[in-house]
Amino acid sequence: MNIIASPEDMQKTALALRRAGKRIGLVPTMGFLHEGHLALVKLARRQADVVVLSIFVNPTQFGPNEDFSRYPRDFERDRTLCATAGVDIIFNPAPEAMYPAGYSVYVEENGLSKGLCGASRPGHFRGVLTVVAKLFNLTQADVAVFGQKDAQQVRLIQQMARDLNFPVTIVLAPIIREADGLAMSSRNTYLSPAERREALCLQQALQTARRLYRAGERDARRIIAAMKAGIEPVPAARVDYIAIVDADTLQRVQRIETSVLVALAVYIGKTHLIDNLTLPENGSSNLPG
Amino acid sequence: MNIIASPEDMQKTALALRRAGKRIGLVPTMGFLHEGHLALVKLARRQADVVVLSIFVNPTQFGPNEDFSRYPRDFERDRTLCATAGVDIIFNPAPEAMYPAGYSVYVEENGLSKGLCGASRPGHFRGVLTVVAKLFNLTQADVAVFGQKDAQQVRLIQQMARDLNFPVTIVLAPIIREADGLAMSSRNTYLSPAERREALCLQQALQTARRLYRAGERDARRIIAAMKAGIEPVPAARVDYIAIVDADTLQRVQRIETSVLVALAVYIGKTHLIDNLTLPENGSSNLPG
Repeated sequence: MNIIASPEDMQKTALALRRAGKRIGLVPTMGFLHEGHLALVKLARRQADVVVLSIFVNPTQFGPNEDFSRYPRDFERDRTLCATAGVDIIFNPAPEAMYPAGYSVYVEENGLSKGLCGASRPGHFRGVLTVVAKLFNLTQADVAVFGQKDAQQVRLIQQMARDLNFPVTIVLAPIIREADGLAMSSRNTYLSPAERREALCLQQALQTARRLYRAGERDARRIIAAMKAGIEPVPAARVDYIAIVDADTLQRVQRIETSVLVALAVYIGKTHLIDNLTLPENGSSNLPG
Repeated sequence: MNIIASPEDMQKTALALRRAGKRIGLVPTMGFLHEGHLALVKLARRQADVVVLSIFVNPTQFGPNEDFSRYPRDFERDRTLCATAGVDIIFNPAPEAMYPAGYSVYVEENGLSKGLCGASRPGHFRGVLTVVAKLFNLTQADVAVFGQKDAQQVRLIQQMARDLNFPVTIVLAPIIREADGLAMSSRNTYLSPAERREALCLQQALQTARRLYRAGERDARRIIAAMKAGIEPVPAARVDYIAIVDADTLQRVQRIETSVLVALAVYIGKTHLIDNLTLPENGSSNLPG
């Protein structure tokens, strides 16, 4: 396994691999890897000759009051996990190498990025799209794998790849969950034991939505109200948003008639957690029960 | 010579060329080609195995009151010129193919793009950077050639290539001028015979700047005042801007101490013309006299 810190070296290596006819698979991460990331590696492995996993806690996607500085980091542990998972190259650049002095170019999306997490995290998706565009160029990825847990992010990256004509195939990986159903996230480590238990309210709300949908309910407002009612009594929980949106346009729907995304973001204490469910179900949510 | 209209076909062709080890040179144009464009082709030819010339009047870089619909177009003439100049591929996509329904992703620059032409043409450089990013991805260019006449544009494209890590070398081509010194531009065809004569005031202003500089003048305000004084009596001329900026940061300078760009934009009647001179001189302006 090769570990590359310099963007220039990464790009040189990638261009040489491409010239040699290798198919490159990219798994972009912020490190502190969990089984969700390893599932992405497995998918990349299946579609590429060389798997590049990037580890980069990207400053431009964090707001001024967010958790950039305390975001969990453990490179030695990540390295061991990558070696075991069959990653070929870890790309872990320094922030100053990715954003040198005088940096001034950003990728912006002005439709899909405005709702859901984009509404409560202004600038977040600009940072995400910018760094992913950079990673596409640096790794010369033929295929890139993203997790369904960040549903709005993956929709935006598909849109960027299409609109800016990146020659990359975006692969979507189903949500991976803990034994009790909590969607895996590096941010779960922030939770106290009590918060960890209360964090189950996210998936329970999605289960409520699924139950109502299966019983024939199609009114978005009624489903959202039932989800909210399940979360409100949870002491540490504060709803950021609960939304039912068209899976393609991410616009809110009144009635569920097309494929929709039931998405929610909830603060558990100070920790911002997200989860989602596609309806009609397609297995991407892996919701238990 | 191959003529490709579909972005998908262009990208497939480019990826196949890259796999075959060919070096691809891109010359982005809006068509209605003149000798300035052909000089770009010659430079691309020298550095690449395959020269792609794109012809695309890009709607996103025109403001609502600008000349998008009346911008001159003559594909048959362009095709003949390209064949003679040794272009390998003309890429001439339709606007709907480049900006399909639901298009929403743009490349923005938030420093260098704010002054000079960016100040009087809001959104212009966002459109330029977006289409050039698309062209880089569609043509898989190893090298791309831009003219010094659009000095701010080429500085911005260098910045985008660096900041977003496009694996492309940007080559700068000197300004090509008509026999009497007017910088070549497809927009020169808008000028009436009287305006065509008055349009010489742009290069005359640059000659004034050069004369003062050669005589030891380093005060930007005094040089600009002398340039303005030469243009003001010209009946059809209305100054958009005259600026002396650091060649790297494009920030206005008080005194000429580093390499600077003397840049001006003047309306001749309704036609927006630009020209520039680098000081100390490096030949890129080809200013007569």
